[in-house]
Amino acid sequence: MPETVEIGLGRSARRGYHLADIALVPTRRTRGSAVVSTAWQIDAHAFDLPFVAAPSDAVTSPETAIEIERLGGLAVLDGEGLWARYEDPAAELAGLDGDTATLQRIYSAPVSPELLRRRIGDLRRSGVRVAVRLSPQHTAELAPHALAEGVDLLVIQGTVISAEHVIRENQSGLNLKTFIADLDVPVLVGGVTNYQTALHLMRTGAAGVIIGYGSHLGSSTHSVLGIEVPMATALVDAAAARRDYLDETGGRYVHLVAYGDLSTGGDIAKALACGADAVMLGEPLAAAAEAPGQGRYWDSTAAHPRLPRSAVVDFTAPSDGERPTLEELLAGPTSDPTGERNLFGAVRRVMGKCGYSTLKEFQKAELIVTNR
Amino acid sequence: MPETVEIGLGRSARRGYHLADIALVPTRRTRGSAVVSTAWQIDAHAFDLPFVAAPSDAVTSPETAIEIERLGGLAVLDGEGLWARYEDPAAELAGLDGDTATLQRIYSAPVSPELLRRRIGDLRRSGVRVAVRLSPQHTAELAPHALAEGVDLLVIQGTVISAEHVIRENQSGLNLKTFIADLDVPVLVGGVTNYQTALHLMRTGAAGVIIGYGSHLGSSTHSVLGIEVPMATALVDAAAARRDYLDETGGRYVHLVAYGDLSTGGDIAKALACGADAVMLGEPLAAAAEAPGQGRYWDSTAAHPRLPRSAVVDFTAPSDGERPTLEELLAGPTSDPTGERNLFGAVRRVMGKCGYSTLKEFQKAELIVTNR
Amino acid sequence: MPETVEIGLGRSARRGYHLADIALVPTRRTRGSAVVSTAWQIDAHAFDLPFVAAPSDAVTSPETAIEIERLGGLAVLDGEGLWARYEDPAAELAGLDGDTATLQRIYSAPVSPELLRRRIGDLRRSGVRVAVRLSPQHTAELAPHALAEGVDLLVIQGTVISAEHVIRENQSGLNLKTFIADLDVPVLVGGVTNYQTALHLMRTGAAGVIIGYGSHLGSSTHSVLGIEVPMATALVDAAAARRDYLDETGGRYVHLVAYGDLSTGGDIAKALACGADAVMLGEPLAAAAEAPGQGRYWDSTAAHPRLPRSAVVDFTAPSDGERPTLEELLAGPTSDPTGERNLFGAVRRVMGKCGYSTLKEFQKAELIVTNR
Amino acid sequence: MPETVEIGLGRSARRGYHLADIALVPTRRTRGSAVVSTAWQIDAHAFDLPFVAAPSDAVTSPETAIEIERLGGLAVLDGEGLWARYEDPAAELAGLDGDTATLQRIYSAPVSPELLRRRIGDLRRSGVRVAVRLSPQHTAELAPHALAEGVDLLVIQGTVISAEHVIRENQSGLNLKTFIADLDVPVLVGGVTNYQTALHLMRTGAAGVIIGYGSHLGSSTHSVLGIEVPMATALVDAAAARRDYLDETGGRYVHLVAYGDLSTGGDIAKALACGADAVMLGEPLAAAAEAPGQGRYWDSTAAHPRLPRSAVVDFTAPSDGERPTLEELLAGPTSDPTGERNLFGAVRRVMGKCGYSTLKEFQKAELIVTNR
Repeated sequence: MPETVEIGLGRSARRGYHLADIALVPTRRTRGSAVVSTAWQIDAHAFDLPFVAAPSDAVTSPETAIEIERLGGLAVLDGEGLWARYEDPAAELAGLDGDTATLQRIYSAPVSPELLRRRIGDLRRSGVRVAVRLSPQHTAELAPHALAEGVDLLVIQGTVISAEHVIRENQSGLNLKTFIADLDVPVLVGGVTNYQTALHLMRTGAAGVIIGYGSHLGSSTHSVLGIEVPMATALVDAAAARRDYLDETGGRYVHLVAYGDLSTGGDIAKALACGADAVMLGEPLAAAAEAPGQGRYWDSTAAHPRLPRSAVVDFTAPSDGERPTLEELLAGPTSDPTGERNLFGAVRRVMGKCGYSTLKEFQKAELIVTNR
Repeated sequence: MPETVEIGLGRSARRGYHLADIALVPTRRTRGSAVVSTAWQIDAHAFDLPFVAAPSDAVTSPETAIEIERLGGLAVLDGEGLWARYEDPAAELAGLDGDTATLQRIYSAPVSPELLRRRIGDLRRSGVRVAVRLSPQHTAELAPHALAEGVDLLVIQGTVISAEHVIRENQSGLNLKTFIADLDVPVLVGGVTNYQTALHLMRTGAAGVIIGYGSHLGSSTHSVLGIEVPMATALVDAAAARRDYLDETGGRYVHLVAYGDLSTGGDIAKALACGADAVMLGEPLAAAAEAPGQGRYWDSTAAHPRLPRSAVVDFTAPSDGERPTLEELLAGPTSDPTGERNLFGAVRRVMGKCGYSTLKEFQKAELIVTNR
Repeated sequence: MPETVEIGLGRSARRGYHLADIALVPTRRTRGSAVVSTAWQIDAHAFDLPFVAAPSDAVTSPETAIEIERLGGLAVLDGEGLWARYEDPAAELAGLDGDTATLQRIYSAPVSPELLRRRIGDLRRSGVRVAVRLSPQHTAELAPHALAEGVDLLVIQGTVISAEHVIRENQSGLNLKTFIADLDVPVLVGGVTNYQTALHLMRTGAAGVIIGYGSHLGSSTHSVLGIEVPMATALVDAAAARRDYLDETGGRYVHLVAYGDLSTGGDIAKALACGADAVMLGEPLAAAAEAPGQGRYWDSTAAHPRLPRSAVVDFTAPSDGERPTLEELLAGPTSDPTGERNLFGAVRRVMGKCGYSTLKEFQKAELIVTNR
Repeated sequence: MPETVEIGLGRSARRGYHLADIALVPTRRTRGSAVVSTAWQIDAHAFDLPFVAAPSDAVTSPETAIEIERLGGLAVLDGEGLWARYEDPAAELAGLDGDTATLQRIYSAPVSPELLRRRIGDLRRSGVRVAVRLSPQHTAELAPHALAEGVDLLVIQGTVISAEHVIRENQSGLNLKTFIADLDVPVLVGGVTNYQTALHLMRTGAAGVIIGYGSHLGSSTHSVLGIEVPMATALVDAAAARRDYLDETGGRYVHLVAYGDLSTGGDIAKALACGADAVMLGEPLAAAAEAPGQGRYWDSTAAHPRLPRSAVVDFTAPSDGERPTLEELLAGPTSDPTGERNLFGAVRRVMGKCGYSTLKEFQKAELIVTNR
């Protein structure tokens, strides 16, 4: 039974836990790295590392997608991002100065379906697996273009979505259930914050559900909208939905991808221990030397034309020293002791310290709640 | 049953929740903005936005009252403020330097009933609805003047008031029950912090009750007096009083107006979800280019002659850049990602994300308690 | 039943609440200042304000004792402080630079019983009531000198004391029970942090018990010793001891004097509402223009020769502006909105806002627990 | 029954308490310092103070080991540290600049078994008791060398270890049970964070178990790995394991040595009150004038070649003034009021204030949980 508190007379609320509220507890057995695997497989696709790079133009470009595949993960290109709006996104990015108004202006250019097709085709020809993100609003229009070029994973993602979106009286938006059922490619869908929506989205036939909206250092969704995702609770609830759906379908396993409040290896490990099968990483990769954002991070909420819900985060301060490579960030080695680099070396190590060999087993790791 | 803790042997206290302690949880259904309404109606008066501007001389002048009406809200002029004390308040405001002693001096000039009448008359002739605030101490003396000129909404407001104010042994202050019963115009009365006082004030016949005393960044009431209003709890409790009063009267609905700890769209949304019908906004509007405070905010507690309970807040630092318009603050669009602008655009959006069409339905939104 | 938590397997601890964890809740009735009294009487001594000035050489000198009596309180001279060690304390204080080592050197001079007698005699002749503090270790030696000159209230005070102090195997220190029983003057004794010690000290025949050790901004007792006094809980527990002792004696009422974590009027009000009959104020008075510390505050723990447990607090920074008078600090009026001035004007006001006429009634005020 | 909370649907976690979450509560009896003893005995070795200096090259050198023995404690030399890698560690330390990469380089030199033997022999000849730390990975190889020279206490210590370390499928690492059973010298083993591992390690025959991994100001294990040791809970749990093991063996008492989150005398006192028999101190001694780190602190996790988990802490800022001696840090007197000096003078004093004569009795001290 979930923990509830009485906010006032006759009104209760659950208590939600952030990843920062919990920690991992090692158990009576430990394992060396040689007997620990971080392998992840979703649908037919196997990966050495349990992660996808977020569809942020600051992180995922056609170029970084290739490097990220090489390092063991999967990059998601934003199908409504700069690479689908401009012939030469680098020229636009050169003019970016961290100001939200500038970002809004750059993103006011229209998405070109043709450009989107060309980007996907190029990426495909480079030999890597292709993942593309579309917003629920534009999926009906843009998905056919993307799919025509061949996509390995389709990501339908808005900040917070549901399986039932009402756009006018008696008129719904994209019917995810019929849309996904008709597709041949696996679909990741989200963000989701609660049990019920997670269960409903699992029932659309999605291969995976994204938990959270990518909350990061620059996020202000909690201030702008009053919405907050206590990630530990959201993942544990979604894992309950996964379990219930598994039972209801007699064995269909839907993946959970955690997106938000993930800055360090420890954060990623805690998300996995709470039930995530993989993580979606945006800001943690933005510091990379190869990142198209060149030391700045933003996601699509930062460019909203009327109501931006995150600020551009700046990693360019001279005191930061040289920017690390994607390889140092993801796989190490590193000389940085903050936890922000060698993210999956850290995950592998803590899995061993907690005594688990596989990610699925690690979802049973013991947790403790503490004040920091 | 309310949540209580044992402070020590034999003494219990309830636990109170601030808006900052809670967040909104989206549900299984979402709605587009086209099917969301923020309309608010109190007595015969309908508004596009559920808000009144606070009776602060830093925010509400006869000029801003007109603009605020145009934008969909209602401004409350302080009937004991500078416009009722000085022919030319602008001249006084020009001398204001953020120092409390200066503020005390400016407010030591007497209130002129004639000036008050003139201000109301002018405002009335400009064609907008007129709301005026009086303190409980001076209502008996000043209300006849205000009412004679024609007021659409009378606001009787002190920091923390009750329905039963004892001023000498066996002598009470203003009898709100008989006073309000005799009036033709609807009355808002407050501030209130608890169930019982809210219920008693509802029984005076007031159209609405103000919850809270306008706690803002410069407030020190918690330090000066040890009083604090955990707004989420106060609103939920007052909503219980509204429910009980509705039952006791067989259908008289009293509005709750939240006043305090409201800086962003998310704060406003959470207050509405806790049961508020509307919000009273002071400090959030003080940054406006049109605001008479010219980048400074204060309320009447800041000018108290013996015991000021808030400091003058300064928004004039050069780093703040250009000041936004009231329109940008209230209705957007904006390039500011902090949540402090496009306040009601944000409210409309989060209502949709939580799946609600009207403010009344939105009072049932799911809440979660978290650490930030 | 007190609230306990399980720290680990088989070990529980109570949860303690600081004054900062709680706030006052106004009730359905309010009162004007004219019907509120802050009068306090202990033994035969009546005071307009419920407070004693702490036996800190930074606050209480023979001169400030006179002014404090005039303003309605009682100052406690430290019988082992500089006025009992030096002919001309002002000369020593002139050399004080905020460094603990300097303080230790100044306090290494011996206490002179003759000087102590002279100070008491002078004070007596000035016509004010005389209160002197002695440490438990030196009470046996110094009390006869003090009492010979005529003391109205004797304060026996160490950081944390008990009714049963063991100094060698089978050898106890000062026997408070026989010592106090033999005295004609009322005694305040403390500091105390828990129910049982409070009850034992009440049984010594003391007129009042001091709760807490004067924790202030510069205190580090929590770091040095790991001891902390959650003042709200300590007062509520001591009030339970007072109630039980009242029952056990058939009517002997022992006063509780709160000492620590009191910076503002709100803090004082909360302490009174938790059961204190009066407060002991040190640091809040150190900013006064008349204070012998001349803008610095320290108590006896700061001068410990081997293990100081607080730092000298400095109020002399130029940004602080002119120093207030004791009268502004205690009784107002003030232009300072921080809550640190007009302390008892604030207490009177909040008593009225909560609807209480006397301090004894105010001990029943409703409390709420919140995060700040 | 341990306190658990529901993180989400179907998943619970215990709540863990840090030393900072608790405080000591004095009881009805107090004692003078003359009747308080801080004596500690483990196996045949008696010490005036209940502490070992951590095996950090910043703190323990052959020279400081002699001084620490003189002051009443025991220093643990890192058998895999610089004194076992370099003929002249001072020359290496001179080049250390607080940069992790430099530290990694310095520690990349191999450990020389011969050098280790020489260091131990020299130390032995100086007449002090010798304690050496080895990592579980290298114990099998290096312990024979160390033991051949004569070691009084062997410390087998990794960040977080278990009694059952799997290094390959069906292949375990060092079998602590058979290894320790065969030794003549007492062994300290750790770090440990939970009841079960503590119990398993007790069953290896170890004389003592180390609780925690030495979390200090520069530690980032919580960020890097997501592991955190709420020390109060970890100690209480380990004390339960000690009790259960005592019962199971009919009387074998295993010592608990707390390592981590210990900066002040108060922290040490709280650890002892939670059940520790002694503490391991690293960072608190690094400020000493005699410390080989010369104002910098690091432990072995800072030098990890691929994934450092703590930063070098710098105490060299000019504002810190003169560095204290080890004697001032451990035994006083001091003029520093922060709690960071005269650590065991403080412990003795708080034991007296809580009314306890011996460390074993002090483990029953009353605790309180508070917000700071």
